Amino acid sequence: MAKDFVVGIDIGGQSVKLGVVDARGEVLAQSVIKASASDDAKVVVKEIADAVLSLVAQAGKKDEIRGIGVGAPNGNYYTGSIAFAPNLPWAAHGSVDFAKMLSAECGGIPVTLTNDANAAAVGEMAYGVAKGMKHFIMITLGTGVGSGIVIDGQVLYGSDGFAGELGHTCAVRHNGRPCGCGKTGCLEAYCSAIGVARTAREWLDMSDEPSVLRELQEISSKDVYQAAKEGDALAKRVFDFTGRILGEKLADFVEFSAPEAIVLFGGLARAREFIYEPTLKALNENVLPIWRDKVRLLFSQLKESDAAILGASALAW
Amino acid sequence: MAKDFVVGIDIGGQSVKLGVVDARGEVLAQSVIKASASDDAKVVVKEIADAVLSLVAQAGKKDEIRGIGVGAPNGNYYTGSIAFAPNLPWAAHGSVDFAKMLSAECGGIPVTLTNDANAAAVGEMAYGVAKGMKHFIMITLGTGVGSGIVIDGQVLYGSDGFAGELGHTCAVRHNGRPCGCGKTGCLEAYCSAIGVARTAREWLDMSDEPSVLRELQEISSKDVYQAAKEGDALAKRVFDFTGRILGEKLADFVEFSAPEAIVLFGGLARAREFIYEPTLKALNENVLPIWRDKVRLLFSQLKESDAAILGASALAW
Repeated sequence: MAKDFVVGIDIGGQSVKLGVVDARGEVLAQSVIKASASDDAKVVVKEIADAVLSLVAQAGKKDEIRGIGVGAPNGNYYTGSIAFAPNLPWAAHGSVDFAKMLSAECGGIPVTLTNDANAAAVGEMAYGVAKGMKHFIMITLGTGVGSGIVIDGQVLYGSDGFAGELGHTCAVRHNGRPCGCGKTGCLEAYCSAIGVARTAREWLDMSDEPSVLRELQEISSKDVYQAAKEGDALAKRVFDFTGRILGEKLADFVEFSAPEAIVLFGGLARAREFIYEPTLKALNENVLPIWRDKVRLLFSQLKESDAAILGASALAW
Repeated sequence: MAKDFVVGIDIGGQSVKLGVVDARGEVLAQSVIKASASDDAKVVVKEIADAVLSLVAQAGKKDEIRGIGVGAPNGNYYTGSIAFAPNLPWAAHGSVDFAKMLSAECGGIPVTLTNDANAAAVGEMAYGVAKGMKHFIMITLGTGVGSGIVIDGQVLYGSDGFAGELGHTCAVRHNGRPCGCGKTGCLEAYCSAIGVARTAREWLDMSDEPSVLRELQEISSKDVYQAAKEGDALAKRVFDFTGRILGEKLADFVEFSAPEAIVLFGGLARAREFIYEPTLKALNENVLPIWRDKVRLLFSQLKESDAAILGASALAW
């Protein structure tokens, strides 16, 4: 039987999303399972394999699956393993041979794995705004800041499979915020959803400036976005600041790989109306004249629920 | 007749170096001509072509030259042109179709051109400490700071041929030194030969600390090196500082492309005894734990006079 379909799996800290996808990027069937409570990798792999097999059966595509593509935090394309992923209890303290284990549980269907930001880049190149591009950088602005770097149409994996950790390049050299990785001043500590909330809280603490955010007990990046939409001056300045820090680092990245475009993706990219201008301004102010006003700053157009599945699935072709 | 030889040409602001090279990287004959005083590209190309043809004749390899490889500041691999190179009067104010012009003057021998740092990376990969490596970053510490990035055994050129301008990524974000490129705080403004001399002069101005450098009218990076060798405390601290700034930025670069090694090359790399330790320390302190103590910091072993010719020649195979 022709194997004309693939499965895309996006493994996150909260949930696992699965989809059966055809060659045009149509998601024929999809499902979501809650992230496993188990810290036993074997148990988790079995749960995910069961979800795959039942989704494939539901789509009526048994024996027609060419491969399974997986995007996961700290996923390594070369080894097929997930290692030291803080948000996955079953892969937090060591290395899990995920691709091999999942393939075994799914009757030998080949499994390809990469990290979630690389999967997003592949999806964007196959089905999104980066279609046809050979050189671009995907920046995922979610809970953290991830990146997928595409060079000559290929994801950059580097010597060990871990290339593209742009969220942990240094944005603030001196007196920078502690980052989850153990360093200080990382881009992720400023330009992630958590970073935006931290900036807002710091600024509220440092002045008496009125802001609707003062009424809230806990502040999330969504609250800051909502406040900015309501015209809150402090909230808007938080996005100006976030965009400036992001644009400054994007200039460094452009000087590295000379991409045609930078594609922003993820929760924070939805605040496009507030973050686009300051990011682009800082990028152009900080980049060498040869690239000024030349590198495009794009926002992913893929539906977020589909994008992760599509990106992972594109790996499997 | 078998074409078993190539010509390597290194174009610099002061001189043009040429060599006839065999497949093992043996330089059979070489010559140096002074940089032309002319600002007419046609005149300069003719001068260089004459030097090529006479060197080839001298080596007895007429009709045996497979190709010519050229390394030049602001050389573009994709277009074969040299554009807006501040140190080359004949190519400072526009774009010169150098590869095509030189080929025409040399009886149609194919000419391949790239920037000088990329040529150095190719030479290091073919004949130097990066032999056999698929992923490394070459940093040239000369009058300026250049870079050649190798990914999967290929030089990274990016979407436009200008990738790898790491000397102009930002080392000091606020209140940084003006750089020749028009920006401020660039790595090149601190970690080039000129940067080292600037640091020494600034520090001498800012304190009364005794230093043998105070006796000099003009200070060059060589003077600082000499002073450090004589045990001058201020001069040694200049290298500590230079190494720290360099290492901090190298950490960013590692997070981009996950190389096996970083190779330092050029005049300043000769101060290895003073620059190695602080650079490596800052690299390891600033990089993500997965790369700590894993990325090798190497120094080119090629003779500087040969390296530029070899690098350029390796392009021509």
